[in-house]
Amino acid sequence: MIDDRSARQGVHLRVVGVSDSKSLVVASDVFTKEFNDNLLSEICRLKADHSSLSTLISGECQVFLDSDLRGKLSEIASLLGTSTGLAFVDCSASSETVEILTQAVDLGCCIVLANKKPLTSTKEDYDKLVSRPRRIRYESTVGAGLPVIASLNRILSSGDPVHRIVGSLSGTLGYVMSEVEDGKPLSQVVKAAKSLGYTEPDPRDDLSGMDVARKALILARLLGMRINIDSIKIESLYPEEMGPNIMSVEDFLSTGLPLLDNDIGERVRKASLNGNVLRYVCVIEGSRCTVGIQELPKNSPLGRLRGSDNVLEIYSRCYSEQPLVIQGAGAGNDTTAAGVLADILDIQDLFP
Amino acid sequence: MIDDRSARQGVHLRVVGVSDSKSLVVASDVFTKEFNDNLLSEICRLKADHSSLSTLISGECQVFLDSDLRGKLSEIASLLGTSTGLAFVDCSASSETVEILTQAVDLGCCIVLANKKPLTSTKEDYDKLVSRPRRIRYESTVGAGLPVIASLNRILSSGDPVHRIVGSLSGTLGYVMSEVEDGKPLSQVVKAAKSLGYTEPDPRDDLSGMDVARKALILARLLGMRINIDSIKIESLYPEEMGPNIMSVEDFLSTGLPLLDNDIGERVRKASLNGNVLRYVCVIEGSRCTVGIQELPKNSPLGRLRGSDNVLEIYSRCYSEQPLVIQGAGAGNDTTAAGVLADILDIQDLFP
Repeated sequence: MIDDRSARQGVHLRVVGVSDSKSLVVASDVFTKEFNDNLLSEICRLKADHSSLSTLISGECQVFLDSDLRGKLSEIASLLGTSTGLAFVDCSASSETVEILTQAVDLGCCIVLANKKPLTSTKEDYDKLVSRPRRIRYESTVGAGLPVIASLNRILSSGDPVHRIVGSLSGTLGYVMSEVEDGKPLSQVVKAAKSLGYTEPDPRDDLSGMDVARKALILARLLGMRINIDSIKIESLYPEEMGPNIMSVEDFLSTGLPLLDNDIGERVRKASLNGNVLRYVCVIEGSRCTVGIQELPKNSPLGRLRGSDNVLEIYSRCYSEQPLVIQGAGAGNDTTAAGVLADILDIQDLFP
Repeated sequence: MIDDRSARQGVHLRVVGVSDSKSLVVASDVFTKEFNDNLLSEICRLKADHSSLSTLISGECQVFLDSDLRGKLSEIASLLGTSTGLAFVDCSASSETVEILTQAVDLGCCIVLANKKPLTSTKEDYDKLVSRPRRIRYESTVGAGLPVIASLNRILSSGDPVHRIVGSLSGTLGYVMSEVEDGKPLSQVVKAAKSLGYTEPDPRDDLSGMDVARKALILARLLGMRINIDSIKIESLYPEEMGPNIMSVEDFLSTGLPLLDNDIGERVRKASLNGNVLRYVCVIEGSRCTVGIQELPKNSPLGRLRGSDNVLEIYSRCYSEQPLVIQGAGAGNDTTAAGVLADILDIQDLFP
């Protein structure tokens, strides 16, 4: 939670509380006090050590646990919500924050999300979260700090209708597809990506396409599509019988994955004969939203993509033949944090 | 002048006045009345016919001329400036609007510019215009509606230092350089561009590089550089002795321009031997800002650029090895207008 009354220039952000899944630490007086740099560093150290926030010992803040946690959050939201630029910031990956976020919205608070789950929940939850559209920002949910949502919002608010979005929104799958294009076997590429730290601990979390589908849903809903995650056709790069409930990560990497090499290799070769390449993309067009491998011209922004950059092509009335293209690093702690911070500062415009 | 108190959703913008260089028409009551669509269409028709606004006959508005014009503008700024989302919108190409704009800023008004001249005037004028940074927007001055300024503002406000910008910011020169790359003589390409309507009536207005330099100055000043237009090293594509004071447009096209074909052709061939291409770009780096032809790798976002799209590469701490790239149509009435409208709506956040 960050409260700030000052203008963008000479800005001073006050951190008045930090929460993990089980505990909340709050400044002794949320109206005047704030967490200083020492306390914030100590909090980062604790979490890096996988410790609970409740083990924090400091005279400058109070700790709330379990049932007291939600009550205290509501209290702070009521006290600071409508009158200050208080922002509830959700950088978790939890689907359990929706309730407290919608409550904060109801109390007039601003919310800033790097967490995709609340925005990809039911239509009802989504409608509640965006019910005050000026009071929510979620740039870092798609392409980390890349100005994707901000740019789409500008295009839409100017009345320019967006009719097609094509994007490569997973750095991991971007890397995998461009390595496979060079003739390397999928199994080798995924193992290399894992050892480089490009994938989740279980690479199937990337290969399933679910993370890309969530990003696609966020963009589709921004365009006004009334759909849920299960309306999206998602192509998984592994078959159900190699799923996490059936195979361990080790078995998947050593036994399962190599069985997929030939099929992908064959698709790459076929595409190449047409002068095309394979990319794992999301396509949003009309009422349709799909996520999976597409054959694309080698000589297009997406076809030229190499490595782990994200790319988004936006087609609208103004950008009809040649798209508006946004490209750059779409993952990483620094860019994600920068996107969250820019969102928090942007919201301060609402509080003169 | 547009005044709006409503939120971005279900937005209603009131146009309360329109001005050309000699006359100002204002709604009969700026607090409650507005120009309706018929009146706005009539105004557009008049201006398309090169008529003066003062010839407008309507009971719904009053006309002010010459010395009364500035007085009335100040009066409206005083009445609506601080309390409403009144925006002074400058879509002219005049260097004479600076005074009234700075006055509007002093009175607490918001200003929205598609006009580059006020922002590329003296440092003193610039400082006055941006003295209330939340109350000025000027997206359409660089790359038309492309989200260039908005994206740079987000990056800068998140504390991510931008250390290098390279851009192709002229659709005309982008087209010229990619045609010349294909081996066509410069003189032919410029004549073709002129007949396609890609250039100014006098193509030297594009070829001088001054328009690109103004855009570069706006970006450099946004990054905090304290420079003037004459601090920028500008490469003109024609020599002084072919300037507008010495040669007519016709003479330049028929006699002057062909004399430049060999030199450019030779440079294109030399670059090609290094696997490079020539692009007319702005480079902002450190305390240096230059505008001119650069030899760039064929396989870079700028090197791959074809036709009249604009491209901007932004290098910062977060985007250090691979830049953040924004690409798309950077000219045209529709995109410019969309950028202005998005700016006007963005400013409404300041007025709850």
